[in-house]
Amino acid sequence: MTSPGPPVPSAPSISSAPSVHVMSAGSALPGEPVDNTALAAALGVNEEWIDVFIGTRTRHFARDLTSGDIRWTLADLCADAAATALENAGTDPAEVEFLVLGTATPDHLMPATVNQVADQLGLDQLPTYQLQSGCAGAVQALSVARHLIASGEFTTGLAIGGDVCTKHLDLRRDLSEAAPGDLVNCVLFGDGAGAAVLSSRPGDGAVALRRVLNRCTGLGREPGQIIDWFGLADRDDARQALIEDYKAIEESVPTMAVEILWELLDSLGWAAGDLDFLLPPQLSGRMTRLITEQLGVPEAREISCVADTGNNGNALPFLQLERLLREMTSGQKALAVAVESSKWIKAGFALEHL
Amino acid sequence: MTSPGPPVPSAPSISSAPSVHVMSAGSALPGEPVDNTALAAALGVNEEWIDVFIGTRTRHFARDLTSGDIRWTLADLCADAAATALENAGTDPAEVEFLVLGTATPDHLMPATVNQVADQLGLDQLPTYQLQSGCAGAVQALSVARHLIASGEFTTGLAIGGDVCTKHLDLRRDLSEAAPGDLVNCVLFGDGAGAAVLSSRPGDGAVALRRVLNRCTGLGREPGQIIDWFGLADRDDARQALIEDYKAIEESVPTMAVEILWELLDSLGWAAGDLDFLLPPQLSGRMTRLITEQLGVPEAREISCVADTGNNGNALPFLQLERLLREMTSGQKALAVAVESSKWIKAGFALEHL
Repeated sequence: MTSPGPPVPSAPSISSAPSVHVMSAGSALPGEPVDNTALAAALGVNEEWIDVFIGTRTRHFARDLTSGDIRWTLADLCADAAATALENAGTDPAEVEFLVLGTATPDHLMPATVNQVADQLGLDQLPTYQLQSGCAGAVQALSVARHLIASGEFTTGLAIGGDVCTKHLDLRRDLSEAAPGDLVNCVLFGDGAGAAVLSSRPGDGAVALRRVLNRCTGLGREPGQIIDWFGLADRDDARQALIEDYKAIEESVPTMAVEILWELLDSLGWAAGDLDFLLPPQLSGRMTRLITEQLGVPEAREISCVADTGNNGNALPFLQLERLLREMTSGQKALAVAVESSKWIKAGFALEHL
Repeated sequence: MTSPGPPVPSAPSISSAPSVHVMSAGSALPGEPVDNTALAAALGVNEEWIDVFIGTRTRHFARDLTSGDIRWTLADLCADAAATALENAGTDPAEVEFLVLGTATPDHLMPATVNQVADQLGLDQLPTYQLQSGCAGAVQALSVARHLIASGEFTTGLAIGGDVCTKHLDLRRDLSEAAPGDLVNCVLFGDGAGAAVLSSRPGDGAVALRRVLNRCTGLGREPGQIIDWFGLADRDDARQALIEDYKAIEESVPTMAVEILWELLDSLGWAAGDLDFLLPPQLSGRMTRLITEQLGVPEAREISCVADTGNNGNALPFLQLERLLREMTSGQKALAVAVESSKWIKAGFALEHL
């Protein structure tokens, strides 16, 4: 099998810097899973359409579907996921030197949610960073965490990703006449968070983070997705706050996913046959199946979760990572691919179990 | 002069990593300055109160005060500032390997504004990062940029900070009966952006970025400031979207500023008398005067801009940096202090002209 199409620029490597290891992962999904029967009833949409067109069986919501009340904040979910990751790594919270959180749906604009997460974890006197991004934010959090460690300044830290997408889900709307492109946004998403402990200490059975790719490729292209927010001054605006070019996403994401896969493989000198695990993009149960087929590495075992968790944005790569770490053994290789369609960001990472 | 109070943990250094230099800075302020006469008339508040209590003479607004129309987006201002910084450094945009933007007021939640900035600058195929933060976001952008370079993976990149605070300024409100603590939020802020080119190449007359401090110190403390946003589902909520504990800010920020100053000095082995320039926190003309007095380094020349620009958030440290670089000469040292009162973040950086 050879790399398709023209050569792409290779992901740069960090040379002669401390190597960075993923010590553990953890996740938090709010409440009980909501199945398609319950979701269809709550939104007044067709259950079979969700089954077939979205291909997602269940998702978790931070808001109560009936009352609309927020039961879990993003900070709650992120702190829960981070605590689990720390426990899984056997890392004392006092060893955590920094927090990096990727999200598209912060609880507030200020303070950044990452600081509330620090508070809930009992952490103080440490640098925190919160990255604003869609599906690439989890990978960007891994990237920043990796550079913080690779610079030699820090040894151990937490990378976190999470989203409470239901902040955009208006349960009062009558969806009976909504167009499919609009309906998709109501049935695609879920809420959740995930986290990983990263360290330059190898530890027993360490998993090395060999590469992280984060690259904006959107020059001159219209966004595939726009999600707006309202301030005090403009919340009466009639403007459209969610814009999705579903056709462009369906066309571009699979192609970009293939390019990311091959770029990461080429930069590492790995062949497709070397891969033991593949973590494909998690748009929806149906889209993930289509993309995985196009990625064309059937020898690698697929690690997906979206059909059970819904698309909970920046939680997803960490949820996949948690499942991966349970199965990965010495000498095995894994590769994760993520695409953010908002401004066409290529993202991914490569892991090797030492 | 000695360090006050108990010893604080020192800002960690990046050892044996490439050193990072600030090659240039640039800024963008929207439209003509709006003076207190015009602002008082537009908001229906007392002009003398602005003069005395805020101590800010002018500010710039991205929105038209009469029509409320957005004339400059955050992306417009950031791209403008970045282009100026590149020009001032004599750096070809093609040499830019990454963008990091700090803001509290992104144009949208997705795509992150930093990707629209890349688009406007004609940049493609590069990593972008957007940090969600208040007054500490500019310093966090410098911090992430510094680690990207110090890890050895990148040579040259742009750190950017900016805010369009008028997204929160409701011009239709009747402020005649508003409490002072509420009025402050209407007259304190401005809009703008700033940027700096960072590189591991020293160049002629390079200014070394010796330290960057970014530390959340808010464990168990209520936020001094909360700024909320509304999604599609909750924009009718009656909840208070701007909460400010002005008393806590007035009490804590000067003390934190002194601690930041001494922590940075101690970690570098610099004495207060070594400082040629001081860039103090830029809350408002009046608060900045008070804090600068408490910092107690009268030998260092103060570089402030808030009385002319208004508090434009994450633009401020870059606006100060631009003014500093025009004056700094070989062998001189400068120190910047920033405090984010939302969750009590200590921030700052130290520069040395080689």
